[in-house]
Amino acid sequence: MKIGIIGAGSVGLLFAAKLSASFPVTLYTKTKTQAKLLNDNGILLDGTKVKSASFHASSETIYEEDIQIVTVKQYQLEKIVGNLKRTTSRTVIFLQNGMSHISCMNELAHHRLYVGVVEHGALKINDYHVCHTGKGLTRLSAYHHNDDKNLKPLLVSKLAVFPFIYEEDWYEMLSKKLLVNICINPLTALFKVKNGGLLQNDYLYKLFETVFDEAFLALKLNNREFYWRHVHTICEKTSANTSSMLEDILHHRRTEVDAIVGYMLEKAKREGMPVPALRFLYFAIKGLEEEKGELT
Amino acid sequence: MKIGIIGAGSVGLLFAAKLSASFPVTLYTKTKTQAKLLNDNGILLDGTKVKSASFHASSETIYEEDIQIVTVKQYQLEKIVGNLKRTTSRTVIFLQNGMSHISCMNELAHHRLYVGVVEHGALKINDYHVCHTGKGLTRLSAYHHNDDKNLKPLLVSKLAVFPFIYEEDWYEMLSKKLLVNICINPLTALFKVKNGGLLQNDYLYKLFETVFDEAFLALKLNNREFYWRHVHTICEKTSANTSSMLEDILHHRRTEVDAIVGYMLEKAKREGMPVPALRFLYFAIKGLEEEKGELT
Repeated sequence: MKIGIIGAGSVGLLFAAKLSASFPVTLYTKTKTQAKLLNDNGILLDGTKVKSASFHASSETIYEEDIQIVTVKQYQLEKIVGNLKRTTSRTVIFLQNGMSHISCMNELAHHRLYVGVVEHGALKINDYHVCHTGKGLTRLSAYHHNDDKNLKPLLVSKLAVFPFIYEEDWYEMLSKKLLVNICINPLTALFKVKNGGLLQNDYLYKLFETVFDEAFLALKLNNREFYWRHVHTICEKTSANTSSMLEDILHHRRTEVDAIVGYMLEKAKREGMPVPALRFLYFAIKGLEEEKGELT
Repeated sequence: MKIGIIGAGSVGLLFAAKLSASFPVTLYTKTKTQAKLLNDNGILLDGTKVKSASFHASSETIYEEDIQIVTVKQYQLEKIVGNLKRTTSRTVIFLQNGMSHISCMNELAHHRLYVGVVEHGALKINDYHVCHTGKGLTRLSAYHHNDDKNLKPLLVSKLAVFPFIYEEDWYEMLSKKLLVNICINPLTALFKVKNGGLLQNDYLYKLFETVFDEAFLALKLNNREFYWRHVHTICEKTSANTSSMLEDILHHRRTEVDAIVGYMLEKAKREGMPVPALRFLYFAIKGLEEEKGELT
């Protein structure tokens, strides 16, 4: 079974490095330059060249594999969705943060669609070198159907250090991840603290809880205690980590605020739910992106 | 006519330096050390020793002058109010930011009370040296009476470079200053931008307007356009300035967030008015104070 991975950022490179040990993998890059670098050098994982049976990089947009794993950021998704619309029916797995990619997926109903949540840490060193900075797992769930059999090759693959597990409820799975992201990412980016800073500082903790409550209500979930405990536990476990949004702000890169907070603002608007702290945070992060963190 | 100035921070030092040219001035300091330094060295204004007819510094708490000008920060006010309760009736002028000092003033009804707004820039270099960084004026207004005659010596004094003017409506005067402070100070401190940054960055401008609207409604003022234009104009005129709250955050000092935002939260609560952006900003600045601006 062949796997195509679309997007060669940190997650795409990590998945290509890990999966190409067991499957023939094509990694689709945005640029010819990156494809050439990957084909010339192979993928480096934690400084060592990956020994893969069959690995190829390509900047083409015609996908030929049985499974496509889409790893691009939400704001690069539009073009990829266009390509996938013209592609024959197959298994397509979306690994984006947030939930705003869900609306795109309605245009792709001819595919067998899955969504996933990546709980690995990955750091892109350069165009063909990635570091696996946090060992975790990947959760996958069927989107609007109940058939997990297309994922069997991934679920049963004996990639002990790179496991996949199946979740029954895609909405619960993405909501948990979204709540974690929305509670931790923007606040840590705004206050320039590591994740644990939100638990150690009484006032930031208050904002952390306020953000959780607004998002929880807007997502129309039940069982506040279950989700709050989940978010809190992740924040504790990752207390020494710098969140991806803070990394983006510190490196003057575009953040995923639209996919995470922007999505929630739109959802809350549709539900007629007031989310003033999320609205403040949205403008705050957009403002920081524009400011590039410097005194004007 | 003798003037006592209570508090020898930047505003207290500036007023002592300027007023001691025309009046006998006693400057009340918190510490004996500062009083001794001032008595030994005199006051330095912009690097030059002030030539004053009669100047004396004291760390005593028995005030003997005809006019007392209170320049301490709001959070140092409680002790001074205690002293003033035991003082015989006289003219007392309060120059604090915000409005939370207004509630203290009800305990001092035996005095002839005035409130003021300082539109000078002042920077304390050391315990006896102050720089007059921005030439402006001081507005004074009677609190719960209409008698400006006790202020005549100040209003007619020919301190051309240090003018006082009288305002009829103390609530409008303090509201204007409070709106300026609440719109500019916390946002510039949070985003670490100069005042003009709030006008140049579309997203920060949105937050600037949100904060204004919440505060304007909570203050129960009329004529939004009049106050909005005032705040906007001050922000334009001071666009190159670093706000005092940002200075405090950058120097890891306690800010005036309680007097400015905290006051407004309490007022809004009494009025049953929702002020979620102000609530967010309050916790944000308290959080930054605790964080001391560093990654945890």
